[in-house]
Amino acid sequence: MKIAILPGDGIGPEIVTQAVKVLNALGEKFEMETAPVGGAGYEASGHPLPDATLKLAKDADAVLFGAVGDWKYDTLDRPLRPEQAILGLRKNLGLFGNLRPAILYPELAGASTLKPEVVSGLDILIVRELTGDIYFGQPRGVRECPDGPFKGQREGFDTMRYAEGEIRRIAHVAFQAAQKRGKRLTSVDKANVLETFQFWKDIVTDVHKEYPDVALDHMYVDNAAMQLVRAPKKFDVIVTGNMFGDILSDAAAMLTGSIGMLPSASLDANNKGLYEPSHGSAPDIAGKGIANPLATILSAAMMLRFSLNKVEQADRIESAVKKVLAQGLRTADIYEAGTTKVGTEEMGNAVVAAL
Amino acid sequence: MKIAILPGDGIGPEIVTQAVKVLNALGEKFEMETAPVGGAGYEASGHPLPDATLKLAKDADAVLFGAVGDWKYDTLDRPLRPEQAILGLRKNLGLFGNLRPAILYPELAGASTLKPEVVSGLDILIVRELTGDIYFGQPRGVRECPDGPFKGQREGFDTMRYAEGEIRRIAHVAFQAAQKRGKRLTSVDKANVLETFQFWKDIVTDVHKEYPDVALDHMYVDNAAMQLVRAPKKFDVIVTGNMFGDILSDAAAMLTGSIGMLPSASLDANNKGLYEPSHGSAPDIAGKGIANPLATILSAAMMLRFSLNKVEQADRIESAVKKVLAQGLRTADIYEAGTTKVGTEEMGNAVVAAL
Ligand SMILES: CC(C)[C@H](C(=O)O)[C@@H](O)C(=O)O
Ligand SMILES: CC(C)[C@H](C(=O)O)[C@@H](O)C(=O)O
Repeated sequence: MKIAILPGDGIGPEIVTQAVKVLNALGEKFEMETAPVGGAGYEASGHPLPDATLKLAKDADAVLFGAVGDWKYDTLDRPLRPEQAILGLRKNLGLFGNLRPAILYPELAGASTLKPEVVSGLDILIVRELTGDIYFGQPRGVRECPDGPFKGQREGFDTMRYAEGEIRRIAHVAFQAAQKRGKRLTSVDKANVLETFQFWKDIVTDVHKEYPDVALDHMYVDNAAMQLVRAPKKFDVIVTGNMFGDILSDAAAMLTGSIGMLPSASLDANNKGLYEPSHGSAPDIAGKGIANPLATILSAAMMLRFSLNKVEQADRIESAVKKVLAQGLRTADIYEAGTTKVGTEEMGNAVVAAL
Repeated sequence: MKIAILPGDGIGPEIVTQAVKVLNALGEKFEMETAPVGGAGYEASGHPLPDATLKLAKDADAVLFGAVGDWKYDTLDRPLRPEQAILGLRKNLGLFGNLRPAILYPELAGASTLKPEVVSGLDILIVRELTGDIYFGQPRGVRECPDGPFKGQREGFDTMRYAEGEIRRIAHVAFQAAQKRGKRLTSVDKANVLETFQFWKDIVTDVHKEYPDVALDHMYVDNAAMQLVRAPKKFDVIVTGNMFGDILSDAAAMLTGSIGMLPSASLDANNKGLYEPSHGSAPDIAGKGIANPLATILSAAMMLRFSLNKVEQADRIESAVKKVLAQGLRTADIYEAGTTKVGTEEMGNAVVAAL
């Protein structure tokens, strides 16, 4: 089994190193190959997603991704900026199904800005469509405004769109995920305003006929943002489009107060996937050896589960992470009085020891 | 001065009655005329925004709006549903500037789901553009997908767009609001993905030159959703587009835990405005006499301040509301042990008594 390792920028290389160490400690045979991406790709060959990196990712069975981005690339033209590598990988690899768990580990309940009774035991799965919507819809650009009171001025514009098949396939992913969990799915839309999301709602309702054991409800995105703050534990699985999913999954992650713990998977139609921590590249703490590697280690576990069909190995890693938390080991981002503060490498070593 | 009173549906009529009572107790001469809107408009004349209601709103100096919507209208065609009245009023009256304060009154700190140290003293103003963006952009609809892997299937689509002048005028509103407050403005965009919001960012940056006393920063919408949960007190004024503003203003309101307290103003270029509570029509508690009228009463205060140029009268109402809170009076939605639970009408009477 071949894994493409794309460490990226900022803390990416440090945290990926720890995840690779954990993978190597499992006693399995993985072929791993590393390539630059994001700012590192730009430095190496003038593009955030070099051809060779894309080819490696395409040829691999799974991709382990660190994080990309650094302020120093902010002045580059948009197509050359680090985050374009993520969009390019998603689109080129057809990674339409993004799974983002928001879980609050009991040991870390204090890290949340929300009251413990509101978030303790939180366990939500957000299923975000990742290759459609206004992220990729054409036409888009800056043009002369063709009509209305601002006619003749410059205007920026983009196209939101979802085709029936696109909605169906992500709905299936979400219903199937719900079947394996609490059997409740909330589809988030803005059907009261947007044609795209009235259509989304109609198709999700239709797909529901194939999953009578799952309870489906529909919620407007503004209300969903409110309910995440008010009573997040009422959710089981949430499915939504690319743009709304971007906003809601980050809000949900932040509810836990420990975004350094949250992995993610982005899957294609054959369960090939890209796995990355939910947090960013944190250039401010890069190279200091204090970043939390657990989200990346847990992303490697998701990779074993979804793409490499090594479910027991995934379980082993997840148990090991729980064990180190129970031992009181904490990186700086989740540190509380009474626990033991450790660095990136110590945390990785502790997970290996706990395997 | 002529005020159009549009009570709407659900708890709308009850709460508007209390706000009208407060206005009448000020000792000023207002001409008020009432008309049906939303579901009530549909019942009265087959359309959520009857012609006569729109004319009344156009002719008035300001509009006091309750709330619209009820589950019983969910099966109507979209153009006939109650919320279309809000969109129609905004567009027809040119109400492009939506001001939504998210304030946590010290007496109500316990109502929030967030820890007191994270939210106590919260005082954010969200300035949302209200007549542009993907809410109104053409073309939109359901069509045959013209290209890509889903070519030939049905697809839903919408157009996001912002013209230069549209961005400039809302930026001016936001910078001027920031000048009167903490002099800090955060412009929320998704410039890393959307052409519309790269353009937005460029124009806001340009308008900033006219307001050197205001500190401007730019934040991606996903990060803004996270920072609202993580450290909301770091914000002063936020300016953003219609769609992102819909989501973020509701999330910010819910941070306070007391959305029944939050007013809003929607202004045109000449400070004529529509004033409404930030909460909805709550059909589940309609007619029970338990709804919180304070958001509507505070909306009437915003109306006096922004449209009717009666700043001292606005101050009087706001002080009276603070007084009733200090007296320990609470409607059910903000009730806590040790306070006195009152109904809608008692709360309105208490505000009148406190004037
Ligand atoms: C970097 C950016 C393009 C990306 C997105 O908006 O999808 C990020 O926010 C994410 O959620 O992975
Ligand atoms: C009812 C709906 C059309 C409206 C909107 O999306 O603007 C509402 O959510 C609001 O924020 O006033």
